[in-house]
Amino acid sequence: MTLSQNHPLMDGRTADSALITAYRGRKPERRPVWFMRQAGRSLPEYRKLRVGTEMLESCLRPDMASEITLQPVRRHDADAGIFFSDIVIPLKLAGIEVDIVPGVGPVLGTPVRTAADVRALPKMDDAALDPIREAVAMTVEQLGKTPLIGFAGAPFTVAAYMVEGRPSRDHMGPRTMMHAEPGVWEELANWAADASGAFLRAQIEAGASAGQLFDSWAGSLSLADYTDHVAPASARALDAVRDLGVPLVHFGTGTSELLGAMRDVGVDVMGVDYRLPLDEANRRLGGNIPLQGNIDPALLCAPWEVLEAHVRQVLAAGDTALSHVANLGHGVPPETNPETLTRVVELIHSIPVAGR
Amino acid sequence: MTLSQNHPLMDGRTADSALITAYRGRKPERRPVWFMRQAGRSLPEYRKLRVGTEMLESCLRPDMASEITLQPVRRHDADAGIFFSDIVIPLKLAGIEVDIVPGVGPVLGTPVRTAADVRALPKMDDAALDPIREAVAMTVEQLGKTPLIGFAGAPFTVAAYMVEGRPSRDHMGPRTMMHAEPGVWEELANWAADASGAFLRAQIEAGASAGQLFDSWAGSLSLADYTDHVAPASARALDAVRDLGVPLVHFGTGTSELLGAMRDVGVDVMGVDYRLPLDEANRRLGGNIPLQGNIDPALLCAPWEVLEAHVRQVLAAGDTALSHVANLGHGVPPETNPETLTRVVELIHSIPVAGR
Repeated sequence: MTLSQNHPLMDGRTADSALITAYRGRKPERRPVWFMRQAGRSLPEYRKLRVGTEMLESCLRPDMASEITLQPVRRHDADAGIFFSDIVIPLKLAGIEVDIVPGVGPVLGTPVRTAADVRALPKMDDAALDPIREAVAMTVEQLGKTPLIGFAGAPFTVAAYMVEGRPSRDHMGPRTMMHAEPGVWEELANWAADASGAFLRAQIEAGASAGQLFDSWAGSLSLADYTDHVAPASARALDAVRDLGVPLVHFGTGTSELLGAMRDVGVDVMGVDYRLPLDEANRRLGGNIPLQGNIDPALLCAPWEVLEAHVRQVLAAGDTALSHVANLGHGVPPETNPETLTRVVELIHSIPVAGR
Repeated sequence: MTLSQNHPLMDGRTADSALITAYRGRKPERRPVWFMRQAGRSLPEYRKLRVGTEMLESCLRPDMASEITLQPVRRHDADAGIFFSDIVIPLKLAGIEVDIVPGVGPVLGTPVRTAADVRALPKMDDAALDPIREAVAMTVEQLGKTPLIGFAGAPFTVAAYMVEGRPSRDHMGPRTMMHAEPGVWEELANWAADASGAFLRAQIEAGASAGQLFDSWAGSLSLADYTDHVAPASARALDAVRDLGVPLVHFGTGTSELLGAMRDVGVDVMGVDYRLPLDEANRRLGGNIPLQGNIDPALLCAPWEVLEAHVRQVLAAGDTALSHVANLGHGVPPETNPETLTRVVELIHSIPVAGR
């Protein structure tokens, strides 16, 4: 598909925004900042809206998903919305039985463990993505010049849920499968890549100005396993959207050892978790890619002067990179005081962009 | 305390064992191998013995803890026993309400979160450690020339359970505390260090030939946080046993970035998790310390030829180090077929020691 002339991306709506400017490797007018999981449980307006609606249902009701996406942008003056959804939504839309169990996470009706299980995986009907397209379109209309970031789970993380059937600590199931039955694993990872790719494409086509691939569990892999058994599928997921030309971001936790390999699947921006200082991440990546991150979420509950000093340190380390988008180094913890997040945004916006 | 002349360490009982030889940086006659969590749920004889006895109770019944420790040594011909216990046993012996909840892990009656909570922590009565001493003495008598490894939880990991009150994914509680209230954190970490130190000392005095400090959750820390807020307490835990002169081993998961700092708390051997190849770990550590590890537990369920190739690769990488003790790069998964472990031991023992 070629984007039509009245497509949001074509009218340059967000091209000059601080976020997209920084994602393109240039210095923006103000320091862009958003927070992973900014939409969600930390906000009382979210908790109120969600009463009586299950998590995945709220993702598939366009009005609700849109409103939840907008809440933190309004409240915090964040420089981007991140589309409110879940990495298992593509599974649900493909017809796989999956639910988010409170206090547990995604739980599948039947884990996917054998060659026969993988072969029996349903193909997603493109029309199933319509609620996503509708929610994104409603959202970007409200956001105006503020960009919306689309997102999808990376194939390893999605497939890990599918094999284990639920969250696990060590992801033994998928990690065993990639060695014990590499062909079956590849087929599963490609299925997940195609599902995530279609999900991300629907968001970008409907108006998202950037896309972020989340590989939450990649930190459980050795570099060799990541390169041999995971990176090709992650590249395939992104191949589904490359022709759309929006900046692509890649993020995982505990991935200090994998940064170069994660960049090499073909992205424009690397997200860095809170463990590795941005100047060191920049050094490892060769200094020629925009970085996003990496305020430690654990500091959000510290006294303000401790948090402020930490934020300033992150910004200074980020200034060593080609460009920098401020963010947390992991998602917003549900118990975070939202006023703290607003104050962090104010602080970041108050500090002039270095080298401009 | 000075060790008496009839103390097991003094009679050189295990000094020439393959394990202790390798831990001392010399080439042993055969390749030593043991498995983290070799004693436990993977063994049917363990599951049978444990019927009707709760986890922590089984740790505190000397006959049972001893028998469980011996089971895998007998079955697999492992080169060491690892004392069967739990890192929260020192808490229980100090009078803190804690239990192992099946499917969850250690759960405390009351989390330790404030300065007052920390100040109110009980001091452990040395006599409370008698069941540990008794179990170790029974065990080393049975083990003969095969060494027993004593163990303890590192202060960060123990304190993380104390602050969270249960296992957590991100350890936000302790990670916030070390920044928000560094003095309170230091006091708590020192309390945990003293408890773990006393626990480890009891095991070594009763006959353990080595000691391993497990910092299971250290991988959630940045290098700076580890160095500033955790390493001093880990060093303090080990200070409690340094005069006993046994080799000390340090292990954590997801700690590829922390290896040097973990060595620098003062240990003789570094355990390496499955994520980082041993030759790369050896390069980072400067080539002058024995390494232990790091067969990927996920491969234990792979077809034998896949597992065998992996084990041979691990041994070859380990051969770049001063000396090498084969082990997993994490604990034995409960669902492991014990016959596979026996076969891995046979394979490792069948391969001549390089450079001897």
